[in-house]
Amino acid sequence: MKILVIHGPNLNLLGEREPEVYGRTSLADIDKRLAGLAEERGIEIQTMQSNSEGAIVDAIHEARTWAGGLILNPGAYTHYSLAIRDALRAVRLPAVEVHLSNVFAREEFRHRSVIAPVCIGSVCGFGRQSYELALNGLLEYIHSRTEAR
Amino acid sequence: MKILVIHGPNLNLLGEREPEVYGRTSLADIDKRLAGLAEERGIEIQTMQSNSEGAIVDAIHEARTWAGGLILNPGAYTHYSLAIRDALRAVRLPAVEVHLSNVFAREEFRHRSVIAPVCIGSVCGFGRQSYELALNGLLEYIHSRTEAR
Amino acid sequence: MKILVIHGPNLNLLGEREPEVYGRTSLADIDKRLAGLAEERGIEIQTMQSNSEGAIVDAIHEARTWAGGLILNPGAYTHYSLAIRDALRAVRLPAVEVHLSNVFAREEFRHRSVIAPVCIGSVCGFGRQSYELALNGLLEYIHSRTEAR
Amino acid sequence: MKILVIHGPNLNLLGEREPEVYGRTSLADIDKRLAGLAEERGIEIQTMQSNSEGAIVDAIHEARTWAGGLILNPGAYTHYSLAIRDALRAVRLPAVEVHLSNVFAREEFRHRSVIAPVCIGSVCGFGRQSYELALNGLLEYIHSRTEAR
Amino acid sequence: MKILVIHGPNLNLLGEREPEVYGRTSLADIDKRLAGLAEERGIEIQTMQSNSEGAIVDAIHEARTWAGGLILNPGAYTHYSLAIRDALRAVRLPAVEVHLSNVFAREEFRHRSVIAPVCIGSVCGFGRQSYELALNGLLEYIHSRTEAR
Amino acid sequence: MKILVIHGPNLNLLGEREPEVYGRTSLADIDKRLAGLAEERGIEIQTMQSNSEGAIVDAIHEARTWAGGLILNPGAYTHYSLAIRDALRAVRLPAVEVHLSNVFAREEFRHRSVIAPVCIGSVCGFGRQSYELALNGLLEYIHSRTEAR
Amino acid sequence: MKILVIHGPNLNLLGEREPEVYGRTSLADIDKRLAGLAEERGIEIQTMQSNSEGAIVDAIHEARTWAGGLILNPGAYTHYSLAIRDALRAVRLPAVEVHLSNVFAREEFRHRSVIAPVCIGSVCGFGRQSYELALNGLLEYIHSRTEAR
Amino acid sequence: MKILVIHGPNLNLLGEREPEVYGRTSLADIDKRLAGLAEERGIEIQTMQSNSEGAIVDAIHEARTWAGGLILNPGAYTHYSLAIRDALRAVRLPAVEVHLSNVFAREEFRHRSVIAPVCIGSVCGFGRQSYELALNGLLEYIHSRTEAR
Amino acid sequence: MKILVIHGPNLNLLGEREPEVYGRTSLADIDKRLAGLAEERGIEIQTMQSNSEGAIVDAIHEARTWAGGLILNPGAYTHYSLAIRDALRAVRLPAVEVHLSNVFAREEFRHRSVIAPVCIGSVCGFGRQSYELALNGLLEYIHSRTEAR
Amino acid sequence: MKILVIHGPNLNLLGEREPEVYGRTSLADIDKRLAGLAEERGIEIQTMQSNSEGAIVDAIHEARTWAGGLILNPGAYTHYSLAIRDALRAVRLPAVEVHLSNVFAREEFRHRSVIAPVCIGSVCGFGRQSYELALNGLLEYIHSRTEAR
Amino acid sequence: MKILVIHGPNLNLLGEREPEVYGRTSLADIDKRLAGLAEERGIEIQTMQSNSEGAIVDAIHEARTWAGGLILNPGAYTHYSLAIRDALRAVRLPAVEVHLSNVFAREEFRHRSVIAPVCIGSVCGFGRQSYELALNGLLEYIHSRTEAR
Amino acid sequence: MKILVIHGPNLNLLGEREPEVYGRTSLADIDKRLAGLAEERGIEIQTMQSNSEGAIVDAIHEARTWAGGLILNPGAYTHYSLAIRDALRAVRLPAVEVHLSNVFAREEFRHRSVIAPVCIGSVCGFGRQSYELALNGLLEYIHSRTEAR
Repeated sequence: MKILVIHGPNLNLLGEREPEVYGRTSLADIDKRLAGLAEERGIEIQTMQSNSEGAIVDAIHEARTWAGGLILNPGAYTHYSLAIRDALRAVRLPAVEVHLSNVFAREEFRHRSVIAPVCIGSVCGFGRQSYELALNGLLEYIHSRTEAR
Repeated sequence: MKILVIHGPNLNLLGEREPEVYGRTSLADIDKRLAGLAEERGIEIQTMQSNSEGAIVDAIHEARTWAGGLILNPGAYTHYSLAIRDALRAVRLPAVEVHLSNVFAREEFRHRSVIAPVCIGSVCGFGRQSYELALNGLLEYIHSRTEAR
Repeated sequence: MKILVIHGPNLNLLGEREPEVYGRTSLADIDKRLAGLAEERGIEIQTMQSNSEGAIVDAIHEARTWAGGLILNPGAYTHYSLAIRDALRAVRLPAVEVHLSNVFAREEFRHRSVIAPVCIGSVCGFGRQSYELALNGLLEYIHSRTEAR
Repeated sequence: MKILVIHGPNLNLLGEREPEVYGRTSLADIDKRLAGLAEERGIEIQTMQSNSEGAIVDAIHEARTWAGGLILNPGAYTHYSLAIRDALRAVRLPAVEVHLSNVFAREEFRHRSVIAPVCIGSVCGFGRQSYELALNGLLEYIHSRTEAR
Repeated sequence: MKILVIHGPNLNLLGEREPEVYGRTSLADIDKRLAGLAEERGIEIQTMQSNSEGAIVDAIHEARTWAGGLILNPGAYTHYSLAIRDALRAVRLPAVEVHLSNVFAREEFRHRSVIAPVCIGSVCGFGRQSYELALNGLLEYIHSRTEAR
Repeated sequence: MKILVIHGPNLNLLGEREPEVYGRTSLADIDKRLAGLAEERGIEIQTMQSNSEGAIVDAIHEARTWAGGLILNPGAYTHYSLAIRDALRAVRLPAVEVHLSNVFAREEFRHRSVIAPVCIGSVCGFGRQSYELALNGLLEYIHSRTEAR
Repeated sequence: MKILVIHGPNLNLLGEREPEVYGRTSLADIDKRLAGLAEERGIEIQTMQSNSEGAIVDAIHEARTWAGGLILNPGAYTHYSLAIRDALRAVRLPAVEVHLSNVFAREEFRHRSVIAPVCIGSVCGFGRQSYELALNGLLEYIHSRTEAR
Repeated sequence: MKILVIHGPNLNLLGEREPEVYGRTSLADIDKRLAGLAEERGIEIQTMQSNSEGAIVDAIHEARTWAGGLILNPGAYTHYSLAIRDALRAVRLPAVEVHLSNVFAREEFRHRSVIAPVCIGSVCGFGRQSYELALNGLLEYIHSRTEAR
Repeated sequence: MKILVIHGPNLNLLGEREPEVYGRTSLADIDKRLAGLAEERGIEIQTMQSNSEGAIVDAIHEARTWAGGLILNPGAYTHYSLAIRDALRAVRLPAVEVHLSNVFAREEFRHRSVIAPVCIGSVCGFGRQSYELALNGLLEYIHSRTEAR
Repeated sequence: MKILVIHGPNLNLLGEREPEVYGRTSLADIDKRLAGLAEERGIEIQTMQSNSEGAIVDAIHEARTWAGGLILNPGAYTHYSLAIRDALRAVRLPAVEVHLSNVFAREEFRHRSVIAPVCIGSVCGFGRQSYELALNGLLEYIHSRTEAR
Repeated sequence: MKILVIHGPNLNLLGEREPEVYGRTSLADIDKRLAGLAEERGIEIQTMQSNSEGAIVDAIHEARTWAGGLILNPGAYTHYSLAIRDALRAVRLPAVEVHLSNVFAREEFRHRSVIAPVCIGSVCGFGRQSYELALNGLLEYIHSRTEAR
Repeated sequence: MKILVIHGPNLNLLGEREPEVYGRTSLADIDKRLAGLAEERGIEIQTMQSNSEGAIVDAIHEARTWAGGLILNPGAYTHYSLAIRDALRAVRLPAVEVHLSNVFAREEFRHRSVIAPVCIGSVCGFGRQSYELALNGLLEYIHSRTEAR
């Protein structure tokens, strides 16, 4: 099975951007650790980063032909991208929303997600580990669904 | 005369995406029927689909040099893309907003359009036929304006 | 098949009332054109106008015994008549909401419809042609439903 | 003593309208049962149904000359008819608001009543029995007031 | 010149209804005093009362053929009747909104008028005299307009 | 069959507390009358009063093993106790919300119930009789359900 | 008897300021006409204008020792001066709120008055005549109160 | 190290309560799996369940003397218990908010958490696995903090 | 005379909890100082602390039989406990709301008190001294009431 | 040390204005008692009253050169004078907000203070005694600060 | 040409007041630099500062007889002084709104300006330089207008 | 030093688009004048225009390696692009928000900027000159920061 991991806008600056909020781990570090974890779990991950809402929608669409699930850190698009929300609903792949920081402890506008209602679950506040917890959660979810059939 | 038909985000998945909401007609079917209708009416249509807000703005801009009107299904951008709204106002072409589903019978956030106020009218809820009604309405509008001069 | 066309409050003044918003066509003109279109399509229409919310509710009720669908321009009742909304839901006839002007380009209070959520679709902004597009849309809808059985 | 029972808009379709919400009892059934209950209690009831806000206001006005109390199912007018509210306050008869369905478990807009604040109480959610409970409650209220003098 | 005076819902109970708010003057008293004042001013008035929104809309429509102005106490319709608002705008007669009580010193919902924005002015809080001040104001307004031509 | 009657916070002071709002009947009086009514109807009631949200949740949970229905006067918890709401939904017993006073005629914050949406119905404004009407309504509901099987 | 007439902020520019809204009459003209009317009615008026909230509060306070009533055009202070509101309530003189223009037909923020709830009534939209109607209304009110004693 | 796991109101009914939302796993199952996981990780967990807000506050307070961190499923208290929020802030232990279901895909009132802003992170939507992910996340967080010293 | 002093949720941690907000004085210190002050004033105080809303309601109820007044620091319950509000209103003892910190200078949700409207007054922001000022204020209030009889 | 006491708008009418709300004590009485209390405490107070927002700002500014603290009853300015708020923040003197009445038990608009967030604390509801409690609280605060250095 | 520069409330304390927000430049420094810049540009400036809303209104009025434009830092009045807004609209001089700090990066209430809509533009966030940019912008605007004639 | 100037969506149509709002200057004119001004000031500018949110985010990111500051006209993205806001915060370059028109005098939705809070300041309403004032302001800001080190 393959999982697509999408890093949304501004995450390419990770490690460099506001380290007091987001920590000093780079995106490459996160992807590497996720790849290691994926190998352990016997699956494959593919990662992509984009600052463009349209490109994220495209990636989600394309994933419907090859991926078994999605991990998505929508960055600032969390709070307004109904286009990404519709894309997730359209492809009907199980998806998990991830945030590095605890968005609920930050500005008011970061407390509302338009993406979360179309995901199976969400993980936030654990820094780079948020992705790893999300991957574990997603795989467990997929397995339980497969078994249930 | 030429009319530009713009299909917004996620409409490329039509027929496949949530068929209980959007039906089983594909975008190609819609475009083909519109082309047939255009031929009957003695005009030409050009269609494009994009998941990217910026690309839709670009297409609207470009249309100002060759199109006599616009038909636009803004998808999720309906509800927040002030950039598309400004583009429509900037080019001053008559435009019609189209939705396949009855957006007013769906989630609260789909009841508000930032695009509609800069269109001449809107049609929603008739599935693929929404486009055809919109094209007829737009042409009638353009003719009445031409005659009035 | 018969279709009921209901013109809501103040539409009796059409042609005379705020022509810069509503145009100079009278209600009689609209009804005549709709009758012609109906004949072409091999159906019959019956039209009524009332300024009274209760009379519109009564007309909708009565239509359930003889009409195959409804076209409704609720005028100002669009924005608050829950009684008309309940009537539409009660009779379960397919209905289309129609507006002559683009209500979304007018006062804020005209942007919200309590009627639209119980219709199959809506058409606005095309002047008298709004009714004709609505009739075409409604018939197409009814046919597709009939065929689907 | 006489009690006026007013059935508001769309209640004439009872039994036929959305039976999954309102049940299959007709208005005639309800009125008959109420009449029976009235007889048992040694009073008389008079019932009326109207889809017209104005007619309901008129009925309330007229009742002030002969009725000892009112039972009112305001239907959709519950949520906006300040005219009915003013009428109830004007006649100063004890009134009970009744709803067949549990309005609080339905659409958001049905949670707010402009009528309830000018009634002595309200009963909702018990189907046809709502009226009977209301009648018992109203009579008890009237008796306690009479005794208190 | 003729002026139409419209008394809205529940005003037929005047003198009898909540006298601590509305005083003990009856509607007949008010109409009589207005007729006297009209005679003094060399004009004619016609008065009507209705509890029905639709009937008030009809009366406003009809007045456009014979009246030079309107005085309107919309009662509870003040706060939601967009149909009456549209009727006033449609007939383009100068109109004055009148209230017996100071609506701004009463319930929150009485502070908002959907009618006032389409009138030339409003008078409230002076009991029966509100009508007389309104008539004087309306006549003065009409004269100043006539002189200005 | 057994019915649990729960009296929420501050109801232990009944008869003593704000008698101009709640009357002079004590809780013991109410319970006694309910017991009499239960006997007449051939059922049993058990009553409890608590000022503690948690204790009310506990009582609702426990009732799922022995009760056929619930009558609940949630007092002030009506307006915010989502924990009680969740408890009612969890045990899936038919429940009726009861209020002694007409909450809709009191402070704004008393107009909203978070409990009502998970009940079958509600009765308010009839003083101690509210409970009796609620018991009658609940029993009737349970019987109609039983017969329907 | 003496009446104090207070003209609030920016009214000193009357005749010169936005004549399309406020007309070309100057404040001196208004005061002169009011003085004439006062003479006719056998009373005296004193007028003052200030752009300062504090000075208006002072004037209202001082009036409690010599005036029988107040006419107040609070200008922009209408919408936020709780200090003027408190002053009016403190002196307990009958006051009438006056506006030259129909504030309800202007910007949203002009629809709300914090002053009106503590006045006996208000008059707006009649240009300079608003003051004259207000004076007549105020005098009538004072006389009716005097007679009632 | 010891971790306190708190299950909030109604979670005692897990497995039995709304299984279509919360699944069929019981609380005992969850606690057992967590204990197993804790053992693997070389730590100890203590679990408690309460329907009482005060008891949850007490448990949090007490934990400050012996626990290294908290896992909290606040159930319905998530949305209004500022007392629990203050307790968490007062004890300054790292805490993780957990929900079995995806609260963002449920009723509007479940989208807002007053607890999340004082936690280090949150996990929701993974059923019983939410707790396990939370425990892993919490331990990782505690270790990274310890190493950083 | 006896006064009941109630310390609400989380106040048991005083001195230890967020000392930068609440200072380093413990609850025992506060109670001791209050006892001393009480002795000086010739009265007696009884203090209690609870984290449970229900227990606070119980304590207020019980106080009606022996206390002459209440001092209440409702902690987080300040902002939502309508049950405590109703308890205060029910017992009709003079009560003073107290806060150690200036709640108006903290998070938005701490600016609103549901308790304050049923107290005679409130004191906040003076740390432990808030209680002492409140006690002085309460005693003065009680004396002035006694003298007034 | 010197303390400035500022009485805001309408307080000059104290004793005379709405005695049922504010009591019969005059401002001179309050000032006299405060002077007495100041003498006891070995400090000096200076008092001023103004109905003008600007004059209050000026007084606050000037106080920064000679006063050790401020006691401020902002009257109606409490609810909107951001200019006074900015002045308090600018001079950085410890200030206490005072109200004679319990503002939280009055009109909704009196529940919000724009001044409180920049004060050290507030006292309301104790009539004239509010000032005395505030003075005691302020002095205690200043002493604790001085000692802490 | 002459330009009036108005410094609103609390700006007299500039340099001394919250220097971390407003910097250490005094108002005299700003005025001196503006005078120098004015001389360079061949115009004259006149400056005034007031803490009083009324005095600012007066100054704006007076300027209409001699000034070619206005530069206004309304301080806290920015957010509520509709009187100043009306004054600017009344005199019809081109005006520029100026703020030293970036008001949009401060408290929520500072994000809304009632003054900006009646200015030609605004400049904020550049400290004392905000005034200089505003002066340059205003002069350029006036010249372009003059040339356009 | 180099400055990046970013022109957001629809600005490519400048001069052609709604000239009554935006004037007749083209973007090339603006860039040319800015280049001239830059040369005078001894710096370099680089300009870019894009209709794509993602491309603007990319440009801001890239600028962190070579630019000393940013001038940004975010067009319609001003009002919702949290992605651009996050990008600005991430790169930590001083940025100035620029608008040609006075956005505060236009539609309500243009009054709110999500970008302004992360800029050092903003300039709006001066047409093409807005950019020049912004450049001067930005350079002055950068110099003062450099000197301060």
